[in-house]
Amino acid sequence: MKKHPPLRSAVGASAPDRIMVYGHDFVGELLGQATLSSMAFLALTGRKPSANEARVFDAIAITLIEHGMTPMAMATRLTYLGAPESLQGAVAAGLLGMGTRFGGGAEAVAAMLRQALPDAAAAHDTQALAVQVFESHAAGKRPLPGLGHNIHKPIDPRTPKLFEIAREAGFEGPYVALLCAIADVTADKTGKVLPVNATGAIGALCCELKLPAEAPRGIAVFARAIGLVGHLVEEGKNPIGRTMWERVDEEINAAHFSENSAG
Amino acid sequence: MKKHPPLRSAVGASAPDRIMVYGHDFVGELLGQATLSSMAFLALTGRKPSANEARVFDAIAITLIEHGMTPMAMATRLTYLGAPESLQGAVAAGLLGMGTRFGGGAEAVAAMLRQALPDAAAAHDTQALAVQVFESHAAGKRPLPGLGHNIHKPIDPRTPKLFEIAREAGFEGPYVALLCAIADVTADKTGKVLPVNATGAIGALCCELKLPAEAPRGIAVFARAIGLVGHLVEEGKNPIGRTMWERVDEEINAAHFSENSAG
Amino acid sequence: MKKHPPLRSAVGASAPDRIMVYGHDFVGELLGQATLSSMAFLALTGRKPSANEARVFDAIAITLIEHGMTPMAMATRLTYLGAPESLQGAVAAGLLGMGTRFGGGAEAVAAMLRQALPDAAAAHDTQALAVQVFESHAAGKRPLPGLGHNIHKPIDPRTPKLFEIAREAGFEGPYVALLCAIADVTADKTGKVLPVNATGAIGALCCELKLPAEAPRGIAVFARAIGLVGHLVEEGKNPIGRTMWERVDEEINAAHFSENSAG
Amino acid sequence: MKKHPPLRSAVGASAPDRIMVYGHDFVGELLGQATLSSMAFLALTGRKPSANEARVFDAIAITLIEHGMTPMAMATRLTYLGAPESLQGAVAAGLLGMGTRFGGGAEAVAAMLRQALPDAAAAHDTQALAVQVFESHAAGKRPLPGLGHNIHKPIDPRTPKLFEIAREAGFEGPYVALLCAIADVTADKTGKVLPVNATGAIGALCCELKLPAEAPRGIAVFARAIGLVGHLVEEGKNPIGRTMWERVDEEINAAHFSENSAG
Repeated sequence: MKKHPPLRSAVGASAPDRIMVYGHDFVGELLGQATLSSMAFLALTGRKPSANEARVFDAIAITLIEHGMTPMAMATRLTYLGAPESLQGAVAAGLLGMGTRFGGGAEAVAAMLRQALPDAAAAHDTQALAVQVFESHAAGKRPLPGLGHNIHKPIDPRTPKLFEIAREAGFEGPYVALLCAIADVTADKTGKVLPVNATGAIGALCCELKLPAEAPRGIAVFARAIGLVGHLVEEGKNPIGRTMWERVDEEINAAHFSENSAG
Repeated sequence: MKKHPPLRSAVGASAPDRIMVYGHDFVGELLGQATLSSMAFLALTGRKPSANEARVFDAIAITLIEHGMTPMAMATRLTYLGAPESLQGAVAAGLLGMGTRFGGGAEAVAAMLRQALPDAAAAHDTQALAVQVFESHAAGKRPLPGLGHNIHKPIDPRTPKLFEIAREAGFEGPYVALLCAIADVTADKTGKVLPVNATGAIGALCCELKLPAEAPRGIAVFARAIGLVGHLVEEGKNPIGRTMWERVDEEINAAHFSENSAG
Repeated sequence: MKKHPPLRSAVGASAPDRIMVYGHDFVGELLGQATLSSMAFLALTGRKPSANEARVFDAIAITLIEHGMTPMAMATRLTYLGAPESLQGAVAAGLLGMGTRFGGGAEAVAAMLRQALPDAAAAHDTQALAVQVFESHAAGKRPLPGLGHNIHKPIDPRTPKLFEIAREAGFEGPYVALLCAIADVTADKTGKVLPVNATGAIGALCCELKLPAEAPRGIAVFARAIGLVGHLVEEGKNPIGRTMWERVDEEINAAHFSENSAG
Repeated sequence: MKKHPPLRSAVGASAPDRIMVYGHDFVGELLGQATLSSMAFLALTGRKPSANEARVFDAIAITLIEHGMTPMAMATRLTYLGAPESLQGAVAAGLLGMGTRFGGGAEAVAAMLRQALPDAAAAHDTQALAVQVFESHAAGKRPLPGLGHNIHKPIDPRTPKLFEIAREAGFEGPYVALLCAIADVTADKTGKVLPVNATGAIGALCCELKLPAEAPRGIAVFARAIGLVGHLVEEGKNPIGRTMWERVDEEINAAHFSENSAG
């Protein structure tokens, strides 16, 4: 029989009088001192954030909440309509819509920036790197992630604010500069002005904070869980899910029977 | 055809240059100022928390993260093993285990306390209410939620800390008093000492903060999403999901074929 | 340390040259002989169905597919819109809407009938049982499950067909009789004619087939998974999810900004 | 405001006395005649299967059920442990593990075969196509899907049976021939004998039946839903989820406290 390795985890462990979390005594060192976002930072990096890191991290996380009536928010409300006993199921349904089409942007930006500049501390020519990134995407006919927005035109109002917060906290570094340079090169070469959007800014700031590769998507998951819980609290008070459904169902039934009886 | 009501939501709305969230200008009023937990408080209540409310709310939320190797954490890791491309799917799978058996405690405590004391400001006799709650549960042979813990004995170390934080913030009020009185009555009447556990403390503090009925479960959903993301970041570096699976699979296959070939 | 029991399962087991499923050699005894629904019957009961059982079981299962544009179908399509790479995630999201409001009917009918008549073979007075069931629900102000339909009036066209199939197969027995008697008693006592609906018929037929308590919900889960896959195949060819979303999003944004700029 | 297209769906529609499914009267044409798998075939293709198509389709579908103690089955049981009130949530959790690592094989095989041979009726040289497929994968260092199995060695016992069923039904055509030729070429060129596995056979048979690209994954979704329901019925009678969990949790807690107290 195969010899299996022992199971180990540093996330948490419990004894009758103690709970350890990433090596910290939960009651003695964290409870009453750590905030929700500092615990999230700890979960992603294994260490507590400095005040400046926490400020940028909070800005990233609350931007990722996405409060609008997204397809995810609709799926969550429609699921709650059928299963009001399971708030967690409705949130889970919404999270499942966070896929490649709406959920992968910041991750792609961070990967693009890290590939171009693996070591932030190394000497480098930002402008040359930006041209190189632009050209490799153009050659592969791949769109550049993190630029332009279909609603927030000409600029995404969140981007300058995110960069301002990063600047004040000392985190407006080489990845932010590189992404802005890529946007400039794109405008020069194509004539299309596509400024850095919020997703792009978040991807760059995840690099500045040295967060792991899973961070953009991981932060989006719990941030959107917060947003979806908010949608459900409102749905509990002023439900609109049933109307969303009945309108669609009625239109499809009416079309079906009128079209088929017409002939 | 049925006349449908218009669709309205106060959660969020977007215009090209502006994003509104619960009536606030997101960029001008929230970004750079609000923390992740203050946004969560806003999503639950429609208003920003005071500093004292935020402190208690953070304590509740980080306690609900639950870092241990729960069945939810295992389900998340096993799902990631098969679908590493979908971090959100693995977190969603874990959240689905947050049901009546492990997830409903704080909600039940809050409901019990609010039923006994609908108006916290009204004059009341804590001791008499506690006896009444104890007796109605005993009569219905229903267990009292929020008392005792199968691991953290004799006391759950999180409870005194949570109450201390609440006291400092001015939120150790009538619901905390009532729950503690229920624990005392239970000890007197049954001889079993079952102190208030963390779940009970959280249920009482949700009442003290006047959070809506969905709050205990809603906070647990996004808090546990944070914990599950942490498990996946670790699983990415030091995977243990495969070993969890192979041990079980091997044991079941071996038993099956040895038992059936034995005859 | 606690002594844990061994892990055993009769569902399946694998050896290099053999796969066992519920005690049958999968390749030698099932593949090429068993249908999808007979495998489902085996999963629910541990035994293969007779031809008559299979006929009734197929009728139950295909009725539970529910092809319409339910909230579940909408949630599935909206999830696919965001995550087209994960067909399984979109189906999972849809299944989560199968809760107490739309999913529990047949289960409740089966439970009601089995409580009234635990042993189908025992001598009993159908009319007296029906009155007793009616009165216990009336006393508790609980609605009787399985009667009436908000669209299919005056009768649900699936019910007589389901009972006809059962009759031909020899499964129109005491549970069907009892449910029909309950409908008659209800009409007599309340003056409201609420014939047995498809959900009711399915609940009764699950009792006639002696399926386990999990059957109505379990069959609904995999039957609806089939229906949801069908919705996604159509969504891939003629997508409508984006339009569902854009109409709602536009209405909410327009209302928000017009109302708030009006003052 | 944007002009939105009308919403249309051919899946299903309801009127008071009629239910239409893919253009068929559900009660008059399908109920009592269609089986569960013929309805699934209808959902995938828009038409009813012939008897021979149905036989091959059933063989594909029941092979995809996967009865073993997979990570998906474990996630389903662990989710049920926490949320026994939500059978659908536990099945949904299991389906989410059907990702790229365990779920994509048949899809990849079908895509590979269709790319090599877009028109099954066109004249072609099977051997030359097989060499070409082998070489393009070797050049890109991409593994060939559908060959070899880590447990079922030297051959997967399901493959010859699946091909036999297809042969009898008249569906052992050019895609089966091509996949077998690819396996032969691979053995010749690499010296490694990797026969076609069940996943490969299913991918080829989906091509023979002219099923849409979504079919391999779509069939796997509902087939596995059946398997997972079976696991839950067993878990209801002979629960093993708690033992799976307690063993892991105990090992991790013990290691944590012994290691950290050792120093």
